[in-house]
Amino acid sequence: MTDKLTNDEKALLLHEEWQGKIETTSKCSVKSREDLALAYTPGVAAPCLKIKDNVEDAYKYTIKSNTIAVVSDGSAVLGLGNIGPEAAMPVMEGKAVLFKEFGDVNAVPICLDTQDVDEIVNTVCMIAPGFGGINLEDISAPRCFEIENKLKEKLNIPVFHDDQHGTAIVVLSGIINALRIVDKKKEDLKVVINGAGAAGIAIAKLLINYGVKATNVKLLGRHGILSPSNEHINWAQKEMAAITNPEDLNGDLSVAVKGADVFIGVSAPGVLTQDMVKTMNNDAIIFAMANPVPEIMPDEAKAAGARIIGTGRSDFPNQINNVIAFPGIFKGALEGRAEQITEDMKLAVAKAIASVVSDDELCEDYVIPEPFNPKVKDVVCKAVKDLI
Amino acid sequence: MTDKLTNDEKALLLHEEWQGKIETTSKCSVKSREDLALAYTPGVAAPCLKIKDNVEDAYKYTIKSNTIAVVSDGSAVLGLGNIGPEAAMPVMEGKAVLFKEFGDVNAVPICLDTQDVDEIVNTVCMIAPGFGGINLEDISAPRCFEIENKLKEKLNIPVFHDDQHGTAIVVLSGIINALRIVDKKKEDLKVVINGAGAAGIAIAKLLINYGVKATNVKLLGRHGILSPSNEHINWAQKEMAAITNPEDLNGDLSVAVKGADVFIGVSAPGVLTQDMVKTMNNDAIIFAMANPVPEIMPDEAKAAGARIIGTGRSDFPNQINNVIAFPGIFKGALEGRAEQITEDMKLAVAKAIASVVSDDELCEDYVIPEPFNPKVKDVVCKAVKDLI
Repeated sequence: MTDKLTNDEKALLLHEEWQGKIETTSKCSVKSREDLALAYTPGVAAPCLKIKDNVEDAYKYTIKSNTIAVVSDGSAVLGLGNIGPEAAMPVMEGKAVLFKEFGDVNAVPICLDTQDVDEIVNTVCMIAPGFGGINLEDISAPRCFEIENKLKEKLNIPVFHDDQHGTAIVVLSGIINALRIVDKKKEDLKVVINGAGAAGIAIAKLLINYGVKATNVKLLGRHGILSPSNEHINWAQKEMAAITNPEDLNGDLSVAVKGADVFIGVSAPGVLTQDMVKTMNNDAIIFAMANPVPEIMPDEAKAAGARIIGTGRSDFPNQINNVIAFPGIFKGALEGRAEQITEDMKLAVAKAIASVVSDDELCEDYVIPEPFNPKVKDVVCKAVKDLI
Repeated sequence: MTDKLTNDEKALLLHEEWQGKIETTSKCSVKSREDLALAYTPGVAAPCLKIKDNVEDAYKYTIKSNTIAVVSDGSAVLGLGNIGPEAAMPVMEGKAVLFKEFGDVNAVPICLDTQDVDEIVNTVCMIAPGFGGINLEDISAPRCFEIENKLKEKLNIPVFHDDQHGTAIVVLSGIINALRIVDKKKEDLKVVINGAGAAGIAIAKLLINYGVKATNVKLLGRHGILSPSNEHINWAQKEMAAITNPEDLNGDLSVAVKGADVFIGVSAPGVLTQDMVKTMNNDAIIFAMANPVPEIMPDEAKAAGARIIGTGRSDFPNQINNVIAFPGIFKGALEGRAEQITEDMKLAVAKAIASVVSDDELCEDYVIPEPFNPKVKDVVCKAVKDLI
């Protein structure tokens, strides 16, 4: 492959070569009649009957113990929008690769030929018996909230929408470490979240659960600050408006960021200007996660006075990447046989990720551990298991 | 593991050790940021967009090209009956192992939490976008016929109920080779099929399509010969009664086998007596496939005058084992991008399997090639591809 190719061209050629980034491989030998008689008939009847008598034995004898489904309807894939189930497959396969590589978890992409909430819920319930967990992926808001809530009610295996909670957990771990540097308390922290979709709302909820005052959080959608009088917002955004903005503050991003300590962007390239950053409090923390072009470039943010800056990109410091969280979370949940990923687990995981950065290492350019840091998976896994 | 253990005990220990017989493994490296940028974001967007523009490109860039779902509702698992979806998992995993080992096909077990025909059909349609084919497994009759027919109508990927067609194909290949030994013509062949579930009915249909006269076939269910006046039979059996038994012959197995050339058992241990075999025509062919104890033991059948005897067991000659057929069938269908497994393909595969046994090798004790015969997969695959 020549260096003249762009990353996209290389990716395309590689995907054609791979023809699928994962495969199912056998853990048992079937090279002889004797092998067949143990792995298949007649021997296979023995574990079948054990499970028939006690359905929990599925965890003992089958892939349910270590396999999850990565489920998408293709309605909100990366920044590409509603591209449908087939076009979502390369992402779900990539996710499955990451689950295996970073968490030793087997993951099967399941892309659904429907975008109806109840059909999605029903389908996932129908296929659940063989899986130990469900990772929801790239499903648009506010449908994703409803789907996740309904599935959590119906299923006794962990259900986790990574775009929400994975992002929220890694953002919180970055905030926790940023607060080790800047001399501010979480109770006083004023936070602006630009983008009120799956990730933005989940980040707001987790920060509030962590101890940030709800009324110190401002969420912004396409039509400005979420407020009780904002008529352009959906039911999930209305819920957040009621909690975060009872005083009914209205306005755009420039209004919201005035006096804020933290800006969190899950929105669009370049929307945060240097002038806006200048109106923020001292020691401003900026996590500009629009991809590939962030809400503000790190050097510009720094020049405007921000102290700690993170992005979604691997070529800048402080990459906010879900892969730090989701593989270890499911590894822990499966090993501990958790029935849910609880709020307490999410907080514990965020703290655990933050703790990977030692006092010696901690600095403005290193508040979030790298995806390839080998300690991450184990501390995340342990944080989950300790709460089961 | 000591030799004192029974096969069941060994199988149980091994299943506990395996904790799932398959795993999902990565075909691409993600050891560096550069790797991540190609297999996952941002590079993964390139194949996503290609597929968005042309959904057929899913075959070019994703696992759809070489991955099938092995779908069961756990309603008719092996000879164990309706044991439910979790308890069916060890069988579906075993099937996935066989698909990979014998056909290079990736297979994902999907066990469904419903036994309602329409719910099963809907669920399979919903998850179909990511799969290149659907292998139905261990679903009870007559629901399996309805499910397969509806799925074939709705989906443009191959749908194949192996308990029906895999069994029928291998039986037919055995019959074809048996007729190379005994001097009889298919047009004159009188066939009794004991067991009128998924396999029995499919065998009857395929034999008729092959050229056996419909009225020379007699099918028997639990209440004797399927006949228009038999009140105990389901809709699928009624259809077969109308085709095979317009003269409304009634009676039990002893009535049916009188003067028959072929007995095919997909029923219960020991139901075919030596006295019954003695009433069959000369050079009788007996495929007694009840497992693990056949309808008649080979030595007894031989002593009673039968000439060619097959069973489902690997410790007797002529093992009738679906694994000879299904891996190569899906390999061929996926490689050739077949939208259906047609009747013509089934006939061609049966002939192809039969052809693996050369004239020199052919004898009473060798009418069906062994599962581990390396030629089988390729001839089966080619037979399917030649008809696409």
